Amino acid sequence: MRTCNDPDDVTAWARSWRSEGARVGFVPTMGFLHRGHASLLDLAHARCDRVVVSIYVNPLQFGPSEDLDRYPRDPEGDLRLCAAHGVDLAFLPETLYPPGFSTRVRVEGLTSVLCGAARRGHFEGVTTVVARLFGIVGPCTSVFGEKDWQQYVVVRRMAEDLHPGVEVVAGPLVRDDDGLALSSRNRYLSAADRVRALSLHRALRAIRDSREPSVPALLEEGRSLLEVDRLDYIAIVDPWSLAPLERVDRPARALVAAFVGNTRLIDNVAVDPR
Amino acid sequence: MRTCNDPDDVTAWARSWRSEGARVGFVPTMGFLHRGHASLLDLAHARCDRVVVSIYVNPLQFGPSEDLDRYPRDPEGDLRLCAAHGVDLAFLPETLYPPGFSTRVRVEGLTSVLCGAARRGHFEGVTTVVARLFGIVGPCTSVFGEKDWQQYVVVRRMAEDLHPGVEVVAGPLVRDDDGLALSSRNRYLSAADRVRALSLHRALRAIRDSREPSVPALLEEGRSLLEVDRLDYIAIVDPWSLAPLERVDRPARALVAAFVGNTRLIDNVAVDPR
Repeated sequence: MRTCNDPDDVTAWARSWRSEGARVGFVPTMGFLHRGHASLLDLAHARCDRVVVSIYVNPLQFGPSEDLDRYPRDPEGDLRLCAAHGVDLAFLPETLYPPGFSTRVRVEGLTSVLCGAARRGHFEGVTTVVARLFGIVGPCTSVFGEKDWQQYVVVRRMAEDLHPGVEVVAGPLVRDDDGLALSSRNRYLSAADRVRALSLHRALRAIRDSREPSVPALLEEGRSLLEVDRLDYIAIVDPWSLAPLERVDRPARALVAAFVGNTRLIDNVAVDPR
Repeated sequence: MRTCNDPDDVTAWARSWRSEGARVGFVPTMGFLHRGHASLLDLAHARCDRVVVSIYVNPLQFGPSEDLDRYPRDPEGDLRLCAAHGVDLAFLPETLYPPGFSTRVRVEGLTSVLCGAARRGHFEGVTTVVARLFGIVGPCTSVFGEKDWQQYVVVRRMAEDLHPGVEVVAGPLVRDDDGLALSSRNRYLSAADRVRALSLHRALRAIRDSREPSVPALLEEGRSLLEVDRLDYIAIVDPWSLAPLERVDRPARALVAAFVGNTRLIDNVAVDPR
């Protein structure tokens, strides 16, 4: 496995692989990798000949009051995990925004709801860094986790608009044995917080397993199960437009975002029509 | 010469050329091509093995009160000119914004001055369409005219930020025998307007040829030579930051934008330090 911190080296490697006819897969991450990320690397491998991973805590996607400074990091552990999952190139830039950088990429509509309403500028930070990374790597395929469902939908939209040659694929959400969605931020949780954090998945499971078609009724049931300090949202929406539904009469997505202690957690499940 | 209107076909052709090791040059245009565009095609040919040209009047870069509807068009003439200048692929999309398109690309700072101050949203329209076209074509080199100096600087910035593999090159401004900068919009000018339009270049030439180092004095001289109906701006700036200068003590750019009748004209020249 190669490691690089210069974008030009990444561009050169990816180009040389493409010129040999190899399909290049790309998994952008913020590091502190866990089994969820590992499953994305495996998915990239299954679809591509070469796999590039980026490890970069992207300041543009954090708000001023968010956890940029304390976001967990473990570059050595990350590189071990990458090597164990057959990564060809790990890209660990010192910064992705050299002096003079002044471009912003935003997706309209999809980013004004759910996490976008709660975290102003967050998705602009995501689409800006992903567009830049796509420009550096030039992948055939890029893999994102379904855990950040809205991010996946927003990035797919951006890629379709600006990088039609890049296929954006989602890897299934990975959970701990107790049902908690894997997240680098779970390490912020105390043991007591962690117990309450399980209520996110419990609420979503109740919605998924119910036969009730009415969205207001489903949301009320979901809310009643949450044991959180602050609920950002719980919603049942069209998976691709993210528009709220009144009835679950077609495939839908149920999503929740809430604070447990100071930690903002998100989770989501697919909901079948009933 | 091939012509395409489906972006996927363009992507496929460009990819096949790249896979043969060919350097792909790209010249985005809004059509109604003249000798200025032809010089950009020739420049692309001199640097690349294959040349792709796009012909598309981009609605995103026109303001609501601007000339989108009456912007001149001549697809047959355009294709003749392209063929005569050895273009390999002419891309004439019906639209570049299919239903659902929702991404915007903007460059901050550089776009808030000069034409960006006068034409709100104009450069966001330019960088959005160029970023999308770069994603479709995947060129090694893209050529822009120095006639739109600010556009060239803004696109260079966008490319450095989002498409570091694309070299953005400027072709020199081409003038008619009387000195008028070639522009598709010159066809709007009556004979009397055209005489007054020459005052833009006359003012810039006076600035360029003067030995005066003071920018306010130079601008006053330039203004005194203009015979226009409305002056948008006349400015002497750093060529790359576009920041206004007080003295011409380093290489600079003098730029002017003004209305003659209802036609907005722009022009610019390099100004050497004195």
